[in-house]
Amino acid sequence: MRPSSGDYHHGNLRQALLDAAHEQLCDAGIGAVGMREIARRVGVSHAAPYRHYANLDALLADLATSGFRELEQRFAHLPAIAEPEARFTAMAATYVEFASDRPQLWRLMFGDALDKTGHPQLLEVSQAVFANLQETLLALGVAAPAINEALAAWAMAHGVARLALDRRLDAHLNLAMDANTLVDTAARIFLAGLRNLR
Amino acid sequence: MRPSSGDYHHGNLRQALLDAAHEQLCDAGIGAVGMREIARRVGVSHAAPYRHYANLDALLADLATSGFRELEQRFAHLPAIAEPEARFTAMAATYVEFASDRPQLWRLMFGDALDKTGHPQLLEVSQAVFANLQETLLALGVAAPAINEALAAWAMAHGVARLALDRRLDAHLNLAMDANTLVDTAARIFLAGLRNLR
Repeated sequence: MRPSSGDYHHGNLRQALLDAAHEQLCDAGIGAVGMREIARRVGVSHAAPYRHYANLDALLADLATSGFRELEQRFAHLPAIAEPEARFTAMAATYVEFASDRPQLWRLMFGDALDKTGHPQLLEVSQAVFANLQETLLALGVAAPAINEALAAWAMAHGVARLALDRRLDAHLNLAMDANTLVDTAARIFLAGLRNLR
Repeated sequence: MRPSSGDYHHGNLRQALLDAAHEQLCDAGIGAVGMREIARRVGVSHAAPYRHYANLDALLADLATSGFRELEQRFAHLPAIAEPEARFTAMAATYVEFASDRPQLWRLMFGDALDKTGHPQLLEVSQAVFANLQETLLALGVAAPAINEALAAWAMAHGVARLALDRRLDAHLNLAMDANTLVDTAARIFLAGLRNLR
């Protein structure tokens, strides 16, 4: 027997809705996610999700926020790396790995489906993740505020992640390059560039 | 009065189908493109497109091929730049500009909608474009075959193009970075890295 909405405590239903939205996202992609289907998956009435979320956009923003928190945690849990070049390389690899582990969530977080400006918590956590990258670049000796360099580093890792997800690094070019090797190569060139420019 | 299929010479109908497919791609995205709608736009019978293309995938592959030819032309028409660093920077900027000018065509060419292996002409022209980038890197003193470096450069420009198309470089981070400035910054760091590594 499926639970009714009365069986959920406040936080439980919210988490169940997020889990169901993530499942649906993974099964069918962003275009197919809808409030009615989420309610059906959780086993509650069509109206129940609206106790927590004004609309689908608000629910997806909360899901993207949870994704940024997970990425933030992965950065925080990198083995203590005091050396900033090793930390930079590990962050780039972690970004690409996250995209590979959670492709649909990563597309939601970094694609064009969501307008972050309407969602303060999402904006805050995405800025915190970016600030983490800026700090790593400052530790590498880049002049403050290191925004341009942080954006360039992000773009580089983003391109690797995207080409890998879209299977552009595989056999069509007769290349045997995998995303992990490529992001390491790109990070090595990028770091050598920063050393040369500072 | 719309033309009937009898009004088209062989090459004309083919080009009309490609143009209609590109229009539909721009209007509604890759998911909405279909043979019947293409035929309707051109004003021919549902069966007429099949005189040129076995299926939608074959038509889209031909459209992507024309996109790669255009990108190749843009690279060929860069003002004669003898200095390889200036050429590399101009190629990166051209790639990002192409994505901005032809977003849906660029997504078709570099996204996951098409399996290139089934389309020899598409494979050939995409390999020619990649070879052009490799040659530029060889001129920069990178050791042959410069595949890893070319892939890293492509990923960097691809990430800038994608983040710009998905409007991730704008107000949500309180950043005033535009794609042209970012790709220049990224190319500058990349080139400094190559100089440092060689």
